[in-house]
Amino acid sequence: MEQILNDIRNSKARYLEELTRFLAIPSISSDPENKNDVLLCAEHVSKMLVQSGLTNIKVTPTAGHPVVSGEWLQAPGKPTLLIYGHYDVQPVDPLDLWEKPPFEAHIKNNRLVARGSADDKGQVFMHLKAIEAVMTSKGKLPVNVKFIIEGEEEIGSPNLAGFLRDHKAEFDADVVIISDSQMYAENLPAITYGLRGLTYLEIEVTGPNRDLHSGSFGGTVANPAEILARMLASVKDENGHIQIPGFYDDVKDVPAVERALLGSVPFDEVAYREGLGVKELWGEEGYSPNERTWIRPTFEINGIWGGFTGVGAKTVLPSKASAKISSRLVPDQDPTKIVELTTRYFQSIAPKSVTVKVTNHHGGKPVVAPLKTPYVEAARKAFKASFHTDALFIREGGSIPIVADFKEILGLDTLLIGFALPDNRAHSPNENFHLPTMYTGIETLVILLNSL
Amino acid sequence: MEQILNDIRNSKARYLEELTRFLAIPSISSDPENKNDVLLCAEHVSKMLVQSGLTNIKVTPTAGHPVVSGEWLQAPGKPTLLIYGHYDVQPVDPLDLWEKPPFEAHIKNNRLVARGSADDKGQVFMHLKAIEAVMTSKGKLPVNVKFIIEGEEEIGSPNLAGFLRDHKAEFDADVVIISDSQMYAENLPAITYGLRGLTYLEIEVTGPNRDLHSGSFGGTVANPAEILARMLASVKDENGHIQIPGFYDDVKDVPAVERALLGSVPFDEVAYREGLGVKELWGEEGYSPNERTWIRPTFEINGIWGGFTGVGAKTVLPSKASAKISSRLVPDQDPTKIVELTTRYFQSIAPKSVTVKVTNHHGGKPVVAPLKTPYVEAARKAFKASFHTDALFIREGGSIPIVADFKEILGLDTLLIGFALPDNRAHSPNENFHLPTMYTGIETLVILLNSL
Repeated sequence: MEQILNDIRNSKARYLEELTRFLAIPSISSDPENKNDVLLCAEHVSKMLVQSGLTNIKVTPTAGHPVVSGEWLQAPGKPTLLIYGHYDVQPVDPLDLWEKPPFEAHIKNNRLVARGSADDKGQVFMHLKAIEAVMTSKGKLPVNVKFIIEGEEEIGSPNLAGFLRDHKAEFDADVVIISDSQMYAENLPAITYGLRGLTYLEIEVTGPNRDLHSGSFGGTVANPAEILARMLASVKDENGHIQIPGFYDDVKDVPAVERALLGSVPFDEVAYREGLGVKELWGEEGYSPNERTWIRPTFEINGIWGGFTGVGAKTVLPSKASAKISSRLVPDQDPTKIVELTTRYFQSIAPKSVTVKVTNHHGGKPVVAPLKTPYVEAARKAFKASFHTDALFIREGGSIPIVADFKEILGLDTLLIGFALPDNRAHSPNENFHLPTMYTGIETLVILLNSL
Repeated sequence: MEQILNDIRNSKARYLEELTRFLAIPSISSDPENKNDVLLCAEHVSKMLVQSGLTNIKVTPTAGHPVVSGEWLQAPGKPTLLIYGHYDVQPVDPLDLWEKPPFEAHIKNNRLVARGSADDKGQVFMHLKAIEAVMTSKGKLPVNVKFIIEGEEEIGSPNLAGFLRDHKAEFDADVVIISDSQMYAENLPAITYGLRGLTYLEIEVTGPNRDLHSGSFGGTVANPAEILARMLASVKDENGHIQIPGFYDDVKDVPAVERALLGSVPFDEVAYREGLGVKELWGEEGYSPNERTWIRPTFEINGIWGGFTGVGAKTVLPSKASAKISSRLVPDQDPTKIVELTTRYFQSIAPKSVTVKVTNHHGGKPVVAPLKTPYVEAARKAFKASFHTDALFIREGGSIPIVADFKEILGLDTLLIGFALPDNRAHSPNENFHLPTMYTGIETLVILLNSL
């Protein structure tokens, strides 16, 4: 084991070079112009799987971008890990905010800066290097592994559930491992055992049949921007509680012992506020900041627009006003039901002077994984042995809808162990991945493989 | 006189051709790309003034677009009319809603459809043709006239007050006549004796220092779009009364006799609603629809925007949200004071978790002109003689800030006699001017000149 870890420590230059090549492929899944780059990247991943010593490697086409898979199943009687990651990346605009070209990785402050470095190529790479290190040294693995590396995570994994259903037997396993999340802080590893779900709606309020002159008509006609503002303002009371009837009905109480565990996670409010540039935090009465993002559902306005939004003044009374609104959900809220309740709420409070159209975008279920499993325990030990500190047990406010798919389709719980730092700027310019964490993290993954 | 009116009736084809040429010049004052078109249009207007028989014609440059002026002062002892109009037009977007190109006038349902046809080129043209008809027939006018045709009305006339101050003596007169307003309905001419004032502000609410992931941060940070919605929703109570402290302090009661006069103006609520495509009107409790637009102040949202407004879903918690807001004012509200009160209101209700920036765009004072003047009486008679019906006395919900400037700088009251029909679509796609009304209206103006 010490030999393997030494090999890893001696391979840093090679790792860097290989990861830089992986990051150089602009595999932006949302942009049709990059379709061929995404395909090239899938081929590149398949070669990386070969290099790690995996077998039965496939690049399976879907209606969108291909899924790359591989396996090593020579450890009879041992558990099988299904390792999931994605090789596609977010778009890079606004390009002018990048300090260097986004697909030419460079190092700054110990971080490898490039699109996809943290989300998720760097973390996929870590798993492959851990496997490779063990295979190179021992010629075999202590457990069975299967890999699914998809190319559509950044566009909502539209084809992954279908792929899993079509290949259900092939991906039978004991647990899913995903590294597409974060440490709690540098040198503070975390096991993420809960994710919020999501509903995302668009609401359009229509008043008069055309934009009107606000002088000639102002005062006689309901202004749809004002009606929209009133409707949106009515969603929460003064304590931040959501007033949509039935919204909280299925919210499961979090046991006191779990709230205590989450409460023990350090939280520096001053640093948090300063990082965001706000004078005061804000949120639902009765919950701490971490609880507000981890164990409580939300209602947020993601976008709002209507009327004249150009430079200067135009005295228009708009015909329409719209908003994108979303809720993060917690167990056992059901996205379909929340969509219904939210739609009904807005329809019911709209005055007769306007019409309201609600469009459903996408959603996902909340998940909470069990904490008392041998896999969680092994991860805890692996973190301790590599980072020399206790991993925190945290939840995450965001959503990874495929975690619910793994549970529903394959019946598998997911172990989320992320290695990005909180300031990794995923989805933003100058995305970066902290290299010392990556090197130590590869050791974590080797130790994890060995302790199952 | 009958000869002159006959000449007018025989000149329709020529009028149409000349007006079409005037409308072909895209004199959009707000767009720097059209700066040269605006200048060309000023030159075109100066030639139209020459053609009408006016003298001392000038195209006077300003910090923005030029003012075109001319006069005929050979009627000693007779009153002097200062006729004001504007040759600039509104932008044309959204271009795709126009049935034909906006600067290629075409006729549809007896209306000439083009940008500027009603607002205000068509109405300026009418005055010039009335003068021309009298001059051609008699070689002189029964009164003195001065013309000011400006090129910045659609951007708030930023340089007109300065121009008037600089040329105060030159524009000494007895009354201002403006045709930049509407008839009450087809064949229902109106004398507009009141205009609302205006304040126009932009309010920007800033929360976190960057757009945030709505999953990772949603619940802990005030969402500026939500704060903005709450602030805007708080402006009016359930009865439509504005809650900004002090807002109504200077609103002068309208005497019962005047409310009765305004109340006698016919109003077809069903037709009004159907024209706007709304199921229900809406407005301040205790006032009729006409009173709501004529004698009561308003608060309107003219535009609102923030966060993600593209196609699809993006789970962003926006850093900023903004709105354009305006109030129409009635005597004796002062725009400067209302700007202060409104700004103070939004600053005072903003929670500490956001910052609020308020920018003042432009404004204007409300005006009410006296009804018992020889000019009002002459206009009443001219309408009766040409349209064969009594003109209504109405107010207008919109604002023509320069009317207050004429009063303040030159000490002159304004007679507002408009010839656009209510469905003229000024500022909107397919702006149009009703040709039969235009032809009869030129007769009205000729009779008016002769009855002073």
